[in-house]
Amino acid sequence: RMITQVLIGILSGAAILTAGILIGHYGISQSSSGAPPSWLKDVAKDVDESLIEKFLSEVDNIQIQENLRELTKVPHMATTAGDEQTVQFMLKRWQDPETGLDQAWREEYMVYLSFPDPKNPNKVTVVSPSDTVLHTAREKEKSYTPDQDDPEVVQPYAAYSPAGHAKGKLVYANQGKPSDYQLLNQTIDLRGTVAITRYGGAGRAAKAINAAPYGVLGVLVYTDPLDINDGLMSDIDETYPHSWYLPPSGVERGSFNTHYGDLLTPYLAAKEETYRIPAENITGIPHIPIQPIGFEDAYTLICELGEEAAPAAWQGAFNCTYNFGGPGFKSTSYFNNRTPVLLKKGERDVKLDIFNHEEVKNSSNVMGVIRGSVEPDRYVIYGNHRDSWVHGAIDPSSGTSVMLELTRVLGSLVQQGKWRPRRSMIFGSWGAEEFGLIGSAEYTEQYFAKLSERTVAYVNVDIAVFANATLRASGMPSVQNILFAAAKQVDAPGLDSTSVYDNWVRYANRTSPALGIIPRVGYLSGAGSDYAAFVHYLGITSMDISYTYDRTKTNARIYPAYHTAYDTFDYASRFIDPGFVSHQAIARTAGNVLIRLADSLVLPLNCSDYAEILEDYLGTAMTLYEHQLRARNISMGKDIMQVNVFIPAPPLSLHRSCLRPLKVRRINDQLMLLDRAFLDPLAFPDKHAYRHVIWASSDAGKPTFPGLADAFATAESSGQSRHWDKVHYHLSVLSQAIEGAAHTLVDVI
Amino acid sequence: RMITQVLIGILSGAAILTAGILIGHYGISQSSSGAPPSWLKDVAKDVDESLIEKFLSEVDNIQIQENLRELTKVPHMATTAGDEQTVQFMLKRWQDPETGLDQAWREEYMVYLSFPDPKNPNKVTVVSPSDTVLHTAREKEKSYTPDQDDPEVVQPYAAYSPAGHAKGKLVYANQGKPSDYQLLNQTIDLRGTVAITRYGGAGRAAKAINAAPYGVLGVLVYTDPLDINDGLMSDIDETYPHSWYLPPSGVERGSFNTHYGDLLTPYLAAKEETYRIPAENITGIPHIPIQPIGFEDAYTLICELGEEAAPAAWQGAFNCTYNFGGPGFKSTSYFNNRTPVLLKKGERDVKLDIFNHEEVKNSSNVMGVIRGSVEPDRYVIYGNHRDSWVHGAIDPSSGTSVMLELTRVLGSLVQQGKWRPRRSMIFGSWGAEEFGLIGSAEYTEQYFAKLSERTVAYVNVDIAVFANATLRASGMPSVQNILFAAAKQVDAPGLDSTSVYDNWVRYANRTSPALGIIPRVGYLSGAGSDYAAFVHYLGITSMDISYTYDRTKTNARIYPAYHTAYDTFDYASRFIDPGFVSHQAIARTAGNVLIRLADSLVLPLNCSDYAEILEDYLGTAMTLYEHQLRARNISMGKDIMQVNVFIPAPPLSLHRSCLRPLKVRRINDQLMLLDRAFLDPLAFPDKHAYRHVIWASSDAGKPTFPGLADAFATAESSGQSRHWDKVHYHLSVLSQAIEGAAHTLVDVI
Repeated sequence: RMITQVLIGILSGAAILTAGILIGHYGISQSSSGAPPSWLKDVAKDVDESLIEKFLSEVDNIQIQENLRELTKVPHMATTAGDEQTVQFMLKRWQDPETGLDQAWREEYMVYLSFPDPKNPNKVTVVSPSDTVLHTAREKEKSYTPDQDDPEVVQPYAAYSPAGHAKGKLVYANQGKPSDYQLLNQTIDLRGTVAITRYGGAGRAAKAINAAPYGVLGVLVYTDPLDINDGLMSDIDETYPHSWYLPPSGVERGSFNTHYGDLLTPYLAAKEETYRIPAENITGIPHIPIQPIGFEDAYTLICELGEEAAPAAWQGAFNCTYNFGGPGFKSTSYFNNRTPVLLKKGERDVKLDIFNHEEVKNSSNVMGVIRGSVEPDRYVIYGNHRDSWVHGAIDPSSGTSVMLELTRVLGSLVQQGKWRPRRSMIFGSWGAEEFGLIGSAEYTEQYFAKLSERTVAYVNVDIAVFANATLRASGMPSVQNILFAAAKQVDAPGLDSTSVYDNWVRYANRTSPALGIIPRVGYLSGAGSDYAAFVHYLGITSMDISYTYDRTKTNARIYPAYHTAYDTFDYASRFIDPGFVSHQAIARTAGNVLIRLADSLVLPLNCSDYAEILEDYLGTAMTLYEHQLRARNISMGKDIMQVNVFIPAPPLSLHRSCLRPLKVRRINDQLMLLDRAFLDPLAFPDKHAYRHVIWASSDAGKPTFPGLADAFATAESSGQSRHWDKVHYHLSVLSQAIEGAAHTLVDVI
Repeated sequence: RMITQVLIGILSGAAILTAGILIGHYGISQSSSGAPPSWLKDVAKDVDESLIEKFLSEVDNIQIQENLRELTKVPHMATTAGDEQTVQFMLKRWQDPETGLDQAWREEYMVYLSFPDPKNPNKVTVVSPSDTVLHTAREKEKSYTPDQDDPEVVQPYAAYSPAGHAKGKLVYANQGKPSDYQLLNQTIDLRGTVAITRYGGAGRAAKAINAAPYGVLGVLVYTDPLDINDGLMSDIDETYPHSWYLPPSGVERGSFNTHYGDLLTPYLAAKEETYRIPAENITGIPHIPIQPIGFEDAYTLICELGEEAAPAAWQGAFNCTYNFGGPGFKSTSYFNNRTPVLLKKGERDVKLDIFNHEEVKNSSNVMGVIRGSVEPDRYVIYGNHRDSWVHGAIDPSSGTSVMLELTRVLGSLVQQGKWRPRRSMIFGSWGAEEFGLIGSAEYTEQYFAKLSERTVAYVNVDIAVFANATLRASGMPSVQNILFAAAKQVDAPGLDSTSVYDNWVRYANRTSPALGIIPRVGYLSGAGSDYAAFVHYLGITSMDISYTYDRTKTNARIYPAYHTAYDTFDYASRFIDPGFVSHQAIARTAGNVLIRLADSLVLPLNCSDYAEILEDYLGTAMTLYEHQLRARNISMGKDIMQVNVFIPAPPLSLHRSCLRPLKVRRINDQLMLLDRAFLDPLAFPDKHAYRHVIWASSDAGKPTFPGLADAFATAESSGQSRHWDKVHYHLSVLSQAIEGAAHTLVDVI
């Protein structure tokens, strides 16, 4: 009878559904018609709560710490010797006969990467008209621990920035958004200039792509102390090694491309013989050089800029006014002291000499599995990337350390014969994520059919711990209740008798019409980590889990050492998570989620939570668009009101018969495949591998259906009827997807 | 142990696999650990051969005859009153409480159709320079029975031909292929001409689309007696009503579009509020007027053409030389006698006045289901269109009559409580097929996710009986053995103690490396009937079944009354299938297939037969392309040699455990989803809704992978490196699809 309630809850969207029901034992009684065959017991088995307790108790913070120490010994940028060392380490651990998985192996792809030239480092200089160098930006970050002296620390660079030379007057372009360049161009003729921008507000590649149409020749990017350090700047007492804040010479590296996956083999797994598009046909990468620098150098450049002051919103934390620049540095500039000749305004250029080169290299995913006992053909996938920019203690090794601890505990249970999940668990240690989620994307391309057909869910734990305050989770709405159930069973780090859930709901909450005040679960609408290919390309129900900041205590856009040479074991263990208790909490929460997904008789995916968010999206769309659409004779009403179909009228009347394995399987298939029904490979022709019409990325920045929002924004700004047609088209795409998904949830025939 | 063999056969491709094994009883023994719950018996149940015998014996030829009589009372072109009458008839039959289905209903789409204007009929005339009409082509077919006098008989026309007027010198352009116009243009400047073409060799729309670039203003199309009547022409003693041959005034109507599905709503179900593209954006339809005429008029026009004689391959059955024409009719032309003024060469034009109009109209599918007992969420779909051009006795009502007889027998069994299939059966009576497979295409668009996830197979029986000689079947190779099994159990019509199978193998056979001499099953690479959306858009394992000609007795490209006003009950019952015994054989064979698909414990889809055909394709590709590809450093070897993966090395070791319902389901899912793994929505950007990389249509006409063959042909003719890149790209697409499909067949984890 309990299971009846569960199913009604899942499929009918009954408001009273709580996580408690989902995690309860179902009190399965034996069939009345005689002793069933032995396998029948296994088939009807549900999540074993005592197994979860055992798992939680065995997750060890010190093991995680030691995993991290091992993983961060050397820099392990994708395809380097350090990366290979981590491949070997993962394989050794997953193939361990006592604590390993059933099987582990590597899978290789030949992928297109971009590197600086160690023998010819990228240079950023200020030069006089006679090319006298007046200032040279740092080529490497300042050393505070031996880690920064490792010769394998890669020079800060913008991966996929073209090689080339750019020289011009410097201008300050804020965050490099289209609106920033537009505004700046109203004051200054941008042709022939070099723009300096700060991180944030726009994607990395976009800062250069947006600049090029204005005739900008090159772009610099830096992290403003306002955005990362809560304004602090001094390495004498304020920044690392004194705190978690970024030292003045720290530089955020990154991949400057727009599309995820290998850039030469779109939609095809990058095998040796795979067809590769000509490099000149790659879209979404800069066509002018771009280079990141530290705020120490940015300070020198920006504070010397002359001309009009930039708007208040453009000002950062430097103790000077951020001017537009353009015609040149101030006449009283510091650079004037560096040359015997008196330079006039406009006579000092900033020069970029970029020597990046692209290379097709062999990148590995490390894969491991625990075979399912009852439904081996159903996969719960858990993954994180393995490659870092430098030592990558937090990004990604915090997540990898957690994954290794989780597989150690589960692997031990399996190897000791104490447990085997109902469904198969697949673990992925992805390669070359930093270059654009490449390893996971190639994996989804290679195994598209198999993964589409069989994957129940994907769990991503990349940066496991940004900070020590609270859980953060994003995912499809249907996983909310699993996250809640798991978080309720884990103690919050550093707090007595408070669960991760209770702590979470204090930091980030919302009011659900059905459930009241609950933690706020985010959406996976972007491509910030390896969930992207699972969500957007495969349409697999996914989630991303981490521990994160107290936003009342910091405004840092991300943890300050992100993608710098300071993201080390020392940094992680002293400033991010001393004692590794937050890592432990993530391992427990994510592992609990994983076990529930793998062992639950009925998949704990909740359609009514999905419907709640869709209704929310619909409400927003009605408010924002209905009036204008009606004026143009485009009806929204019948079109996407289909959201309601998500709550099928008659609750399924399931009695003991629901124990029939094929009936349970049928319901599970409906739940597993729900997100697949939202895929439309033709909906977003300009967005590579975005097919999920609900969670696709959007430029409009509205909390509603992305294709509709973007089409509306374009139509509203252009006023062209073909753009209004596109709005209508996206309404139809959406309507068909939602109606199609609803059709998969109502009675099967 | 039998089931073990079956599974080894299915999944390992063992050469000894025969249909006999597949259709055998499995001898399921009870579980040894006690009495199983009652439902377990149902779950383990296999095809009941006695049920099949009962079905075969109850299929009645007279019932089929009476179905046909009812369906052909009036013309029932899509969306006309006659069409609505057939909707009501289908609903009445499927909702009959004694012989009906569990449920039946109609589903409506607003689709873009094209009609002539009854008040302003299309005209084809020969005119003098002063516009004196020298000859007028018939506007309607000659009457031999009251059927032809029905006011609802639509004037012969080319649906989707634009309205318009064309006037010019007549030329004879053979079949209107690109090569035909190219050759003709070498002799005659085609600018300003009107071309007459014969059916065959190129698609209907292509005859006009290929002409336009040469400056041709209008196109006529007719059926040459050579191609349809084995040369016979006279209605005095040779053609209908004296035989099955086409009378001189008979005209094949048809849809002159290239893409299937509603033309205004590509990839979207054509609901009322669905976004519609502007009509001027439709691709694949003629931009110059085209009109079909009978061979009586074609004779008059062609035999009067002057100038050079056309090549031998262009000559038809008329008792005159087919000349190119162009500058005009012969000076001694018959048309000269029609005017008092002596006309010179080049002074008689052919004129087309076309008044077709397009309209969005409400078309219905009629749907019916029998709910499955054990796996209601698995669908076996059976369908045929309901709409005809005129009375449509053969096309499509022969198929509909068969479908109704089949549902009568199955429905009776269900209503009497004697039987219920393991899986659900869905029956579709599609609307507006004649206008481009519209009803079935819209259905697959609307229910895309649900149908993709759950459909085991689609069975299409459109024209059930072309002629009385032999079975003809096309389909994915994996259905071959089901067709064989079914055909072996049905008596061939008109032959004593010969099975449909034994008769078939005499008419059309091939030698299989594994199975020896077997009937030849065709492929579904085109879009000739409603299987297209199932095969090409959804990737569902499909087949198309009919009874057909003895090719030693006729060369008719199709049965002669096809799409004419002579395709009537009288014609069908006197000349196509007197006694309706071939209809009966088709009903028995198709019904048998349907029951096997719905009731088999393990789906009788055979992967090794699929592998055999893929290897055949591969062999052809190697022979045709390898040498040239190697010369261009494109390796075919490793790329598509993956075909071998289809035959997994270790045979599955399944013992009694295979009776576990979830294990059987797992294997069935692998089999069901195999064809889905071959889909690539990006492989054919120019072919609407073609996604199946093995069976897509191809212009190259080679018995191998279509994308590769077309890309190779283009590259070879252009020599451009971007075209050779495309060849490499298609090899990669193919490799990934085949490898991906193979991954779904090997062990599930």
